[in-house]
Amino acid sequence: MKFLNKKYLFTPGPVSVAPEVLLSMAQPITHHRLPEFSEILKEIRENLKYLFQTQKEVYFFASSGTGAMESAIVNIFSPGDKVIVIVGGKFGQRWLELSKTFGLDPIVIDIPWGRAVKPEEVEKVFKKTPDVKGVLIQACETSTGVKHPVKEIAEIVKETEAVIVVDAISALGVYELPMDKWGLDVVITGSQKALSLPPGLSFIAFSDKAQTLAEKSKLPKYYFNLQKEKKAYAKDTTAFTPAVSLLFGLRKMLKRIKEIGLEKLFKHYQILSLACRKAVSALNLEIFSEVPSESLTVIKVPEGLNTNELLKFLRNKLGIVFAGGQEHLKGKIIRIAHMGDQSFFDLLIAISALEMGLNLFGYPITYGIGVKVAEEILFDYIKKEYL
Amino acid sequence: MKFLNKKYLFTPGPVSVAPEVLLSMAQPITHHRLPEFSEILKEIRENLKYLFQTQKEVYFFASSGTGAMESAIVNIFSPGDKVIVIVGGKFGQRWLELSKTFGLDPIVIDIPWGRAVKPEEVEKVFKKTPDVKGVLIQACETSTGVKHPVKEIAEIVKETEAVIVVDAISALGVYELPMDKWGLDVVITGSQKALSLPPGLSFIAFSDKAQTLAEKSKLPKYYFNLQKEKKAYAKDTTAFTPAVSLLFGLRKMLKRIKEIGLEKLFKHYQILSLACRKAVSALNLEIFSEVPSESLTVIKVPEGLNTNELLKFLRNKLGIVFAGGQEHLKGKIIRIAHMGDQSFFDLLIAISALEMGLNLFGYPITYGIGVKVAEEILFDYIKKEYL
Repeated sequence: MKFLNKKYLFTPGPVSVAPEVLLSMAQPITHHRLPEFSEILKEIRENLKYLFQTQKEVYFFASSGTGAMESAIVNIFSPGDKVIVIVGGKFGQRWLELSKTFGLDPIVIDIPWGRAVKPEEVEKVFKKTPDVKGVLIQACETSTGVKHPVKEIAEIVKETEAVIVVDAISALGVYELPMDKWGLDVVITGSQKALSLPPGLSFIAFSDKAQTLAEKSKLPKYYFNLQKEKKAYAKDTTAFTPAVSLLFGLRKMLKRIKEIGLEKLFKHYQILSLACRKAVSALNLEIFSEVPSESLTVIKVPEGLNTNELLKFLRNKLGIVFAGGQEHLKGKIIRIAHMGDQSFFDLLIAISALEMGLNLFGYPITYGIGVKVAEEILFDYIKKEYL
Repeated sequence: MKFLNKKYLFTPGPVSVAPEVLLSMAQPITHHRLPEFSEILKEIRENLKYLFQTQKEVYFFASSGTGAMESAIVNIFSPGDKVIVIVGGKFGQRWLELSKTFGLDPIVIDIPWGRAVKPEEVEKVFKKTPDVKGVLIQACETSTGVKHPVKEIAEIVKETEAVIVVDAISALGVYELPMDKWGLDVVITGSQKALSLPPGLSFIAFSDKAQTLAEKSKLPKYYFNLQKEKKAYAKDTTAFTPAVSLLFGLRKMLKRIKEIGLEKLFKHYQILSLACRKAVSALNLEIFSEVPSESLTVIKVPEGLNTNELLKFLRNKLGIVFAGGQEHLKGKIIRIAHMGDQSFFDLLIAISALEMGLNLFGYPITYGIGVKVAEEILFDYIKKEYL
């Protein structure tokens, strides 16, 4: 029994969803070719532009985030195209797998997991290989909590024939990533991470430069064919049957984001992540990520602590779900997401649960020392913002 | 903006309701005279007996808790009947108002708000006035957080011609109150406090002694006539249209209570309230209630602290809803409920919000000192129970 069976989801996808958004998805199903649905679609398209900070159209698929990553590859590139792939974690690896699957010619910048790529490293490859067609990168590498210098790399790419393709699945809506202003050519996101929705939707937007490349793309595509979606948008509809309930949720969430305002939303996650990092330091633990993202906090587990048992206990007995590490990081890190419907008080829950877990599994700490530091930072911000 | 608009309800009614219970109430409405509804009714009746710890039938009304209080008066007593009324708060006053409204002859035991009645005080009245017909009491006086000695008073009443009528609206399901074992003649509850459901239902059960009195009752009654309900139960139905959706929720909640078990449920609230009181002491504040109930913690506000502003700030800016005092206690106490779907982590939220409020409104304390103490107690219990 988990007390009264409450669940607290701190995993970096899926994330907790606001009750009002969940409720909006319980509406009766409507038909997607009716005029009333076109109206919903128009509102969604408009508000997606606000989220992406772009004047371009944002397209979506009923798919996981990986679907939009695949759509970027198959719509823009052709077999044999040289692409720079930043591999510093699980999702960098995914770019590499996709590149190989569709016959591109990937040039890997391999960086140790936990480190951020340096813009110079990308520049060096361009100098050596001027005919590169694209740079595939994560805004936030979810497996390591690292924030890559997307803005700086975009400036390098701008001077070349290549496009920058940004997987922003765990970034867009959590921190500043303005597509048009920074000249990002392709921006991708999914529903279940930074966007705070249930899994099942993916999104993609294209710059003119990317659109030009797309017109020459020779890769076969059907479901993920963006030209089909473009034609459908012209008729205020979608190419295939959209995930109606999820779009009800998307509509509600985008409206909410617009009401709060991106600036305030970014500030919220900034304070959450700052308070978490400071609390973790107060517990004498180290942050794993060289350049930590606001989307999640990744903690280096001290030698000898049984992370798997700790995570299992928190999950099964207390209903607190943190994520561990993937591949060679298994057992070595703990990941606590800030993405999703997370209030300041939720963070205090996460810290206190961490305090309990550490104490139980051989890393004795004084209760409350992490919570105290988090309270100080959170409440200091509240004082300034709300009084 | 309350961050991401989360609401935390710590009021002593209504209380927060478990998501699975809320969901169960979203089922399509069924007709209450269908055989399938009789089956639901049977299950509810059976599980209500478990909750009340009685072999008697438990009846219910679509009404607030006050409805069941009124039904006790009009079903058992007759005009001019002498009743002892324990008045030590808002709900004791309600018994008095009901007695007067229906022409009973109340003998008031007036006790200062915050104090519990002493069994001797009741005994003294019986010695002076042997023809008393009933004792009207609260198990927990919600307005002061006081737990009255119901068991001891029931032992006194047992030796007389009178019945003990217990308003257990903020007690039944939170702490031990076994109807048959303690010889409680009438037990009343509502849906929106200790039972952790939305408002709208009230409940009442009768001992044989109360039933005998009821047969002689001369007060007029129609909607609250328990003889009508008794006849309807014999046909597996209810006298009037029941609140179908609320009964779906009741069915789910009773099932949940049975699965958890009363013993474990009582222990949960015991630890929650203990941790809260200790945290409050660590913050150098006093508990207002002489004999504190497990249902809520009532804090004496220090001189000079603007309680109304503090509660307003927490409510409007942080989404944390505590209750203040009623009548002459307005501004003098803060009430934090433990009833409802409250996890141990919810209590940490309440304490940290209290820490913030105190700091902001002129009672400086070190952040985290209350939370630390609560964590120690809660996690100590978890270690014993869940490892």
